[in-house]
Amino acid sequence: MNYGMIRYIVGKMLLIESFLMLFPAFVSLLYREREGGCFLLTAAILILVSFVISRKPENTVIYAKEGFLIVAMAWILWSLFGALPFLFSGCIPRFEDAFFEVVSGFTTTGSTVLSDIEGMPKCMNFWRCLTHWVGGMGVLVFVMAVIPLSNRNSMFLMRAEIPGPTCDKLVPKARTTARILYTMYLGLSVAEIIFLLAGGMNLYEAVIHTFSTAGTGGFSNRNASVAAFNSAYIDGVITVFMLLFGINFNLYFLLLMKNVKGFFKNEELRNYLGIVAAAIVLITINVMNLYGGVLHAFRYAAFQVVSVITTTGFVTANYELWPEFSKTILLMLMVVGACAGSTGGGMKVSRIMILARTITKETRQILHPKSMNVVKLDGKRLTSEETHGVYVYTICYFAILCVSVLLISVDNFDFTTNFTAVLTTLNNVGPGLAKVGPVENFSAFSCFSKIILSFDMLVGRLEILPIMMLLAPVTWRKKF
Amino acid sequence: MNYGMIRYIVGKMLLIESFLMLFPAFVSLLYREREGGCFLLTAAILILVSFVISRKPENTVIYAKEGFLIVAMAWILWSLFGALPFLFSGCIPRFEDAFFEVVSGFTTTGSTVLSDIEGMPKCMNFWRCLTHWVGGMGVLVFVMAVIPLSNRNSMFLMRAEIPGPTCDKLVPKARTTARILYTMYLGLSVAEIIFLLAGGMNLYEAVIHTFSTAGTGGFSNRNASVAAFNSAYIDGVITVFMLLFGINFNLYFLLLMKNVKGFFKNEELRNYLGIVAAAIVLITINVMNLYGGVLHAFRYAAFQVVSVITTTGFVTANYELWPEFSKTILLMLMVVGACAGSTGGGMKVSRIMILARTITKETRQILHPKSMNVVKLDGKRLTSEETHGVYVYTICYFAILCVSVLLISVDNFDFTTNFTAVLTTLNNVGPGLAKVGPVENFSAFSCFSKIILSFDMLVGRLEILPIMMLLAPVTWRKKF
Repeated sequence: MNYGMIRYIVGKMLLIESFLMLFPAFVSLLYREREGGCFLLTAAILILVSFVISRKPENTVIYAKEGFLIVAMAWILWSLFGALPFLFSGCIPRFEDAFFEVVSGFTTTGSTVLSDIEGMPKCMNFWRCLTHWVGGMGVLVFVMAVIPLSNRNSMFLMRAEIPGPTCDKLVPKARTTARILYTMYLGLSVAEIIFLLAGGMNLYEAVIHTFSTAGTGGFSNRNASVAAFNSAYIDGVITVFMLLFGINFNLYFLLLMKNVKGFFKNEELRNYLGIVAAAIVLITINVMNLYGGVLHAFRYAAFQVVSVITTTGFVTANYELWPEFSKTILLMLMVVGACAGSTGGGMKVSRIMILARTITKETRQILHPKSMNVVKLDGKRLTSEETHGVYVYTICYFAILCVSVLLISVDNFDFTTNFTAVLTTLNNVGPGLAKVGPVENFSAFSCFSKIILSFDMLVGRLEILPIMMLLAPVTWRKKF
Repeated sequence: MNYGMIRYIVGKMLLIESFLMLFPAFVSLLYREREGGCFLLTAAILILVSFVISRKPENTVIYAKEGFLIVAMAWILWSLFGALPFLFSGCIPRFEDAFFEVVSGFTTTGSTVLSDIEGMPKCMNFWRCLTHWVGGMGVLVFVMAVIPLSNRNSMFLMRAEIPGPTCDKLVPKARTTARILYTMYLGLSVAEIIFLLAGGMNLYEAVIHTFSTAGTGGFSNRNASVAAFNSAYIDGVITVFMLLFGINFNLYFLLLMKNVKGFFKNEELRNYLGIVAAAIVLITINVMNLYGGVLHAFRYAAFQVVSVITTTGFVTANYELWPEFSKTILLMLMVVGACAGSTGGGMKVSRIMILARTITKETRQILHPKSMNVVKLDGKRLTSEETHGVYVYTICYFAILCVSVLLISVDNFDFTTNFTAVLTTLNNVGPGLAKVGPVENFSAFSCFSKIILSFDMLVGRLEILPIMMLLAPVTWRKKF
């Protein structure tokens, strides 16, 4: 294990976080809030720590294992330091709460421990939503876009951080790939800001809601989330942009390369849109009576379906009051999640497709034991390593789900609360049902449960392996 | 597909069921109940149907696909015809309820739609529990033990019906294996009857509770289940026998062969006992306050833990009132289930072990990409086909769990009810939580939901593949 290189990259990465702190500090200047100093103080601490640990080692070669560890440590350290401004300013007095909130931010979950979000200073809400934006595309991908690293090393980081069963580079150089990704991300974000401004939102709210949409996070500066704006136009704009940010960014690169056919031929995209359409139709029919008409029902159903499948977690309707069938569909959508290579969480549509095709394949195999049955995606045969990776991911996913539900059950909340709290954090959605429902928050959980749920958010965002590596005793044995 | 042979074996199998009907008919004679005629009528129908469809075909060769189909059809037809006595006698007036009850019997689930079990005639309760006893060791294995079939053909049936990731024959001949299995099963059952009689139970109750314990079913003739006897001795005897029937029967064959060392070296057995011990300790501590002392808490915790992990589903305590942590442990135990090759349901301890070892293996693989990491069980390397089979099983298991919960959510019960109803039927346990809790029953569900839950019981008992084969459109295409 190349500890020198791990320390070097982690150190660089803390420097980047100190730079990010300047944005909320700037916001506090604009609104004359004295809490801005907390960001500058945290930035100073980050620079100091980075200076102490960051020495370029002689051996700069890293492998997959170092890649996983760097990604895991990067996310945990960014969250630990990112919690400091909340603590210093007293906005969130307890460390476990501040940590939970920042992990929820970077992992683009959007679960909150705050009951009065509107009482927070503007710079703090800006920081909450900024973490969504950075976490959405990836902390390490962000670092790669600004810091020079060898192409080989970058790939190991990218593979460990970008969600989905496979990781394709857009162009041969990983660093250029990272920059293209962030440029497209920025472009779409600017477009959303303009559309929201056109709907009468002020610049501050347009920016932070764009951060939340782009990262598929879900934090808002309003207690009632997007419902507070009570505008069909804003609902519509956010619905469309959530849907867009749930699509694999590699496909946008195809569009940029004028390959429109390739864009629409993508099987994951088609399945993603198909699932969204089916869920909207079913829920619209199911809740029609509640909203006294198809149009209203459609508006809320569409927003909630897209919000949940992209794992954003914005709320315009208290779906806790919907019939059980609609609520169960939303829970299923949480598990499915968005497309691979998007900013969304969950298991990803392509993994679900691979699993479904495996089931079909196995049934055929019994009928024709001698024929060659393979699992294909986009017409390409998947290697047994790729499918095996998906199986292992699925097994780990359900194992962590079960163990987490057991651990937080110590708090003695009801089963629906425990189960959906884990489901919503593990899939980086935000709200769940019952005591963690759309108009509730996570403050009632014990410190222990908050740590477990923070862990689930990290596990969900980093797709399990990096965090498991960090926890495995075998990783830390001397001989490596 | 050799339809002639499928028809032949299915026909033979109906003949066997007509023979089984004589037992409850005999019981009705003893207690002078007029409902006995319903069993004779059903027996006559079965003989007639069997006579019509059962002609020995010229081609007697079958393969795995026919094996799966025969098993699936055998279980469904036994359940359809087994429901007739309830219907004819008017004891269960609606067909879907009677079908649910008999499927619950044969699959050794033990979920009931009856609210007043004590109001049922003795012969009907005898039939309910007899289905547990036959279903526990396997309907087809039972047929194999009495009807001559070629050794090759028998193996395909056995592999499709015996639970667990692998299927070992005890002796080279499958038919002899089936007979040895049923002899040991009978021996253990007789032992339990004697112990229960010694505790003051009458013969009728001793027999039917033994049927339920042996098949790890859970039906009782008392509304309050085993709690009705209110005897620490009876609780203890049933706890021990449930534990024994949850062990792989191949291990008892080792004991018969005087290989005691081999018995205790079995890894699945050790893990099974370990999980049981850990769960009992945790729950005892958790519920100590409720029962005012360790001894009482231990009695109820031990009974409930063993009842749930072996998927029997007998009840001595209303665990709905226990703290959430204990309830969640019970839910986990439902998923784990008993040992492979036992009469218990669930995923089976050995599958959980293989899944856990896969996770460890994958973590090591990243650290040492070049080393050979394999999954072992009992010191034997598992082939990639064996582990692959476990992965596919797990994927199907969770897929069916999700889809079933969605489908029954149409009834608009709460999430805990829906989720645990599916969990308890899919794992063949019996009771769940909330509206299907230990002192409740399944009568409130709609006809549609009852069919879904019956399907889940069959899927759980037959370990998914046979039922999936039956439903796959590709199975029924002309060219096979």
